[in-house]
Amino acid sequence: MSTALVILAAGKGTRMNSDLPKVLHEIAGAPMLMHAIGSGLALEPSRVIVVAGHGAEAVAKAAEEAFPPAQVVLQQEQKGTAHAVAQASEALADFDGDVIVLYGDTPFIRPETLEAMQAARAKHDVIVLGFEAADPARYGRLVMQGERLDRIVEFKDATDEERRITLCNSGVVCANRKVLFELLEQVGNDNAAGEYYLPDIVGLANAAGLSSGAVTCAEEETLGVNSRAELSVAEALFQSRARAEALEIGVTLQAPETVFFAYDTFIGGDTVIEPNVVFGPGVTVENGARIRAFSHLEGCHVSRGGVVGPYARLRPGAELAEDVKIGNFVEVKEARLDRGAKVNHLTYIGDADIGEETNIGAGTITCNYDGVMKHRTRIGARAFIGSNTMLVAPVSVGDEAMTGSGSVITQDVEPGALAIGRARQVTKPGMARKLFEMLKLKKARAAKGVE
Amino acid sequence: MSTALVILAAGKGTRMNSDLPKVLHEIAGAPMLMHAIGSGLALEPSRVIVVAGHGAEAVAKAAEEAFPPAQVVLQQEQKGTAHAVAQASEALADFDGDVIVLYGDTPFIRPETLEAMQAARAKHDVIVLGFEAADPARYGRLVMQGERLDRIVEFKDATDEERRITLCNSGVVCANRKVLFELLEQVGNDNAAGEYYLPDIVGLANAAGLSSGAVTCAEEETLGVNSRAELSVAEALFQSRARAEALEIGVTLQAPETVFFAYDTFIGGDTVIEPNVVFGPGVTVENGARIRAFSHLEGCHVSRGGVVGPYARLRPGAELAEDVKIGNFVEVKEARLDRGAKVNHLTYIGDADIGEETNIGAGTITCNYDGVMKHRTRIGARAFIGSNTMLVAPVSVGDEAMTGSGSVITQDVEPGALAIGRARQVTKPGMARKLFEMLKLKKARAAKGVE
Amino acid sequence: MSTALVILAAGKGTRMNSDLPKVLHEIAGAPMLMHAIGSGLALEPSRVIVVAGHGAEAVAKAAEEAFPPAQVVLQQEQKGTAHAVAQASEALADFDGDVIVLYGDTPFIRPETLEAMQAARAKHDVIVLGFEAADPARYGRLVMQGERLDRIVEFKDATDEERRITLCNSGVVCANRKVLFELLEQVGNDNAAGEYYLPDIVGLANAAGLSSGAVTCAEEETLGVNSRAELSVAEALFQSRARAEALEIGVTLQAPETVFFAYDTFIGGDTVIEPNVVFGPGVTVENGARIRAFSHLEGCHVSRGGVVGPYARLRPGAELAEDVKIGNFVEVKEARLDRGAKVNHLTYIGDADIGEETNIGAGTITCNYDGVMKHRTRIGARAFIGSNTMLVAPVSVGDEAMTGSGSVITQDVEPGALAIGRARQVTKPGMARKLFEMLKLKKARAAKGVE
Repeated sequence: MSTALVILAAGKGTRMNSDLPKVLHEIAGAPMLMHAIGSGLALEPSRVIVVAGHGAEAVAKAAEEAFPPAQVVLQQEQKGTAHAVAQASEALADFDGDVIVLYGDTPFIRPETLEAMQAARAKHDVIVLGFEAADPARYGRLVMQGERLDRIVEFKDATDEERRITLCNSGVVCANRKVLFELLEQVGNDNAAGEYYLPDIVGLANAAGLSSGAVTCAEEETLGVNSRAELSVAEALFQSRARAEALEIGVTLQAPETVFFAYDTFIGGDTVIEPNVVFGPGVTVENGARIRAFSHLEGCHVSRGGVVGPYARLRPGAELAEDVKIGNFVEVKEARLDRGAKVNHLTYIGDADIGEETNIGAGTITCNYDGVMKHRTRIGARAFIGSNTMLVAPVSVGDEAMTGSGSVITQDVEPGALAIGRARQVTKPGMARKLFEMLKLKKARAAKGVE
Repeated sequence: MSTALVILAAGKGTRMNSDLPKVLHEIAGAPMLMHAIGSGLALEPSRVIVVAGHGAEAVAKAAEEAFPPAQVVLQQEQKGTAHAVAQASEALADFDGDVIVLYGDTPFIRPETLEAMQAARAKHDVIVLGFEAADPARYGRLVMQGERLDRIVEFKDATDEERRITLCNSGVVCANRKVLFELLEQVGNDNAAGEYYLPDIVGLANAAGLSSGAVTCAEEETLGVNSRAELSVAEALFQSRARAEALEIGVTLQAPETVFFAYDTFIGGDTVIEPNVVFGPGVTVENGARIRAFSHLEGCHVSRGGVVGPYARLRPGAELAEDVKIGNFVEVKEARLDRGAKVNHLTYIGDADIGEETNIGAGTITCNYDGVMKHRTRIGARAFIGSNTMLVAPVSVGDEAMTGSGSVITQDVEPGALAIGRARQVTKPGMARKLFEMLKLKKARAAKGVE
Repeated sequence: MSTALVILAAGKGTRMNSDLPKVLHEIAGAPMLMHAIGSGLALEPSRVIVVAGHGAEAVAKAAEEAFPPAQVVLQQEQKGTAHAVAQASEALADFDGDVIVLYGDTPFIRPETLEAMQAARAKHDVIVLGFEAADPARYGRLVMQGERLDRIVEFKDATDEERRITLCNSGVVCANRKVLFELLEQVGNDNAAGEYYLPDIVGLANAAGLSSGAVTCAEEETLGVNSRAELSVAEALFQSRARAEALEIGVTLQAPETVFFAYDTFIGGDTVIEPNVVFGPGVTVENGARIRAFSHLEGCHVSRGGVVGPYARLRPGAELAEDVKIGNFVEVKEARLDRGAKVNHLTYIGDADIGEETNIGAGTITCNYDGVMKHRTRIGARAFIGSNTMLVAPVSVGDEAMTGSGSVITQDVEPGALAIGRARQVTKPGMARKLFEMLKLKKARAAKGVE
């Protein structure tokens, strides 16, 4: 049976206090929308429809980035969840199968949960995802009759007995496409807000002689985000899961609560991650590497035996082969470092290739930008780049070559050669003492002048 | 009705294990004394009297910094809270109005609470601030008779029935100046410690036919600090409130528990603050900026569209106009950066002005200190400062000028000019190989010598 | 009475998912094995026997590092705890006294607890360490008869009544050497796993007319580590104790939960430690110093009045005398800085001596490595090292000498002299504008070429 996802992503999210559409706020480096789509992709849906409204253009862009075949339909006015789903009707007119309705601001539904909903469709026409609420508060309640879902009752309309029900409505539903859209056409808006509510399809289905059922998931899967505070709670939940998974596969996190992962971070076993490490998107770390304290990694790869940090910043395109060492206050971007290369201190390596076992001295900078374009620096194997060498790209330094400390290298250096570019030291005896006296005198005069 | 504050700040704080007077220990970058005075200032008091004792000189200085019109009176010996308040008697002899007694080690009383105490004075002569204690433990209890406060009973003197009372004494009181000091004269010291206790005024007032009442606040407002552990709890409480407020106004805190605010930090909406950011005093960040991980800001301003960090340090006097970008391992101090200026890597900008859209290359340093005085560097708009340029101040670089990588700039550079100051590169074929061999030989010999 | 420790350290720790033997995983910068040995060393044992198995060579090395007189015996096959202890029999054949059995993966037993076990030996032949479990779960239970320990019953063999017992077995035992090994010989392996279990000695002792007793400790002392998650819990417990101790002695921790100590960190009173500071092994900080945010210290000493950070990295061998200031993005290694020396920004000081009141300019680097060997830099008192000075070691700079910004210093500088080594600045009017135009043209052409 083929499946279509309809993801509601039209809301403004007033309580976010933001110019950014709510579903584009990020968790673990990816928009919530991407997390929501990601949950559903495990079902290998044949269609993904995103219903956009506020900030539709930005939402459409994000949807496409998350899943290029996604289609975006527009909900011009926000007239309730049933109305939102109905906007997908035309786009799915030729689709034969089940539709699952998800929410762009509900990023944690597990694929297994959606699979359970699919499976439950064998028994019922409409499946609603419920959760046992620790504090049901003002959630809608699922009123069950044995295995059948009789109706969903809003808190404000519920009797005292119904309010004692703890099985609550997540809003996620699954039904055959044709059934779903026929039911949606019957949903009315005769309520205080004048909105069309998706849960109403349950009552309508039962009235039409169809059967509704419920699948239950953990409450935390249904966590929705309506404010920055809730966003930070969602982020914390993501992180706490990611840390537990890393520990499970054999990563040492000395202080798990201080390590932040991105949605796609991959860390191999027997890696040690010290306190205060931040992973942006696109990072892979092989087994047995060590990421030291205060490091920041994005879009990079660290191979087996690598040691990074403390205070290392690896930016997108940093590719470290085995046993590479990146030390403190070092930034690496769009650069490949071969096996055993070392960049220990206060260095910027950008747009470069560094050969095996090469040692880059403290304070070295690849001058990759001329004010208009970026250029590449190529350094061979076993080379020795002296401290504070400026490598004015495009430039290359051969294998086993050497540069003198404080040199500005503007021309290629052949293998085995020494390149040096610095002025001779001149020492003027007694001159420092004179200078100090002069400067103090000047200061005293300046102070007097002020008076 | 005019109000005077009397703030008790004479205690040593033995359990702090510190040479610093207790009330000068800091929360969120400001001495506790300043927080305590701050609470009371919302009442626009006509007098503020700080009662100092231990470390009186330092306390007086801090009081003046917090609120210049504050008067400091000395409590030579610490003989109890009633004795401490009595030291303010002379300074307030000519004052007509209400006195509120606050504590320098109790930093979280809300202005609204003090206003409620003022208002309650319409009904009673003496108002005591109480709180419902989750665990009343050994606090003094407020024994009420209807709306009237009958007496305050110390835990050790309390009957079993009185110990079941959960309304406890915060120590904060409000009374008419004349009434307060007349009552204080009657307080005795017939107790184990031989001290004069402020709560005794309640019994004395009632005995004299006056009326006492109580106002209740949240327990956390009355949090007092007597040890470093309690100081850290107070700091945590401050931070947790500040984070909640930031989220509320629409700031994204990816990991709220890792962001530290100062007492006066101001962050605009739609700002994103990544994990591990520390704000010292005096920081303002406009809407829509981004403060990246591991950044440290003090006394600076970041405008709309600014991106700061990771690993950026903005020190006092750093003024960033719109869309300025400060990258990693960059320190900025006493400097103004105009719209769109970029300082991306490993740079020190101190005592400088940087023009619009100017790009400062990696490793640039404003050499602002000559060993005796500081000097200023001025760089125009759309200039390009090559990597590792030393700008020996005082010096200026004009609009659209350029400096070559590795240059030491000691003379002004006119607009549109290129300034360069570096030695020519000399390359010696085969010399690196020879040097390596020589060094290895030397090492081998040295090793032999040791044996 | 002399004491011997037998420390069981042979397990693989399958659930650690690691190539490293379990007891070598670190807490607070030291292998768990070292913590376990450390607990026992307070008893001044005359013998320490470590029973190794998995990764025996590495374990033996760590044991020797933790306590050089430790003897390592091998448990070839892992056949249970009784079997493991029995491996120490030969090594202790000539030993007369008590044996205490500890576990390499149980790092938190307090010395006081072991002393209580020793003392309890006056009353009983075999002493078992128990703990009151908050959730006894599947622990073995200690079945007491008055003051005597009747037997230890495994959870799976326990009756319902026995399962209600909350006094559980920690596995730690103390007995006379001769008694212990005689009992061990009688332990059988008639159980599902076919293993020899140490707790069986209690029943055997009682059967032989000997007396067994129990000593109780806090549950957290018995915390064992079987997975990375448990390792992180153990680390957190260590840190939480260390932070509480630091607060107690009068250290201000602005955010205790962000400060990480090593097993041997020593911090003096009235020190302020800002958020996000990591201490590796071997650090001492004297009273009244300040360690600013984002600093990382290992193997170093900070004296009274020192200010370190933010973003300072002190590596092993960094010795800071009084009032030394180390600023941001500065790395110091194997270097002594005399009173009042200042290294404020973006600097690498390695293998160096810096005199009193000397000021090291931003961007300075001690070029201590020539590709083969390390060399030393010596700088006198009150010297002024200009920004971006390269000090090519071995080299020395005398008292009150000065170096010009951007100089490469290869020859010694005598006291009071000024050393300078840089090219003269040349300024070419209009050249920057021409260059920009040329580069833009080039870029445009390149773009065209691509099309």
